[in-house]
Amino acid sequence: MVLVRQEIGDVLRDYRLQKAMTLRQVAGRASVALGYLSEVERGQKEASSEILASVAEALETPISVIMREVGDRLAVIEGVEADSVVPDTLPDELVAEFDADLAVR
Amino acid sequence: MVLVRQEIGDVLRDYRLQKAMTLRQVAGRASVALGYLSEVERGQKEASSEILASVAEALETPISVIMREVGDRLAVIEGVEADSVVPDTLPDELVAEFDADLAVR
Repeated sequence: MVLVRQEIGDVLRDYRLQKAMTLRQVAGRASVALGYLSEVERGQKEASSEILASVAEALETPISVIMREVGDRLAVIEGVEADSVVPDTLPDELVAEFDADLAVR
Repeated sequence: MVLVRQEIGDVLRDYRLQKAMTLRQVAGRASVALGYLSEVERGQKEASSEILASVAEALETPISVIMREVGDRLAVIEGVEADSVVPDTLPDELVAEFDADLAVR
C-alpha cells in the first residue's frame, strides 16, 4: 500500500535540507514540537493540514509546491509498481521501429 | 491558511461524482464509515494515509493522480492569493511590447 505520509515526510525533509535548516529551526518557526516534526519527516505520524501549512511556511515553500512534489513521487512509485506486472519484452516490430528511429538520429 | 484536507475532500468528491458512485458505494468498497467519508469529502476530517489509499482504490484512481490534482488546485489557490498582492498595472513599455506582439499575429 502506497502511503501518502511517507512521501510527505520525505519531501519535507528534502526541502529542509535544501534550505540547510535544522529540524530545530523548522520546528521553532512552525511552532511544532521537534519530536513530532521528526516523526512526520520519517513518515511515522500524519501531519494535520494546519501543521503542514505551518511547516511549509517555515520552509518558505508554497504548500502547492510540496503537494505537487508528493504527487510526482507517488506517480513514480505507482509507475514502478505498474511496471512490475508489465512484460519486459516488446513485440519484434516495435523493437525494429525503435532501432530504425535511433538510426535516423 | 490554505488547508490541504479541503482540496483532498473536493478532489475525492469530484472523482466519485465523475464515476457516478454514491458515498455509500465508495464507503462500502473502502471499508470506511459513510459519515466519516462524508466528513472527509467536506474537508472536516483529516483522512489517514491508509484511508486515502483505500478510498483511492475504491475510486479506481491511483493515489498519485489524486495528490497531483490536489497540488494543482492548491497552486491555483496560492496563485490567486499571490496575485492579490501584485499590482494590476504593467509598466508602459511592457504593455507596448505586448500590443506589438499581438499586432504581429
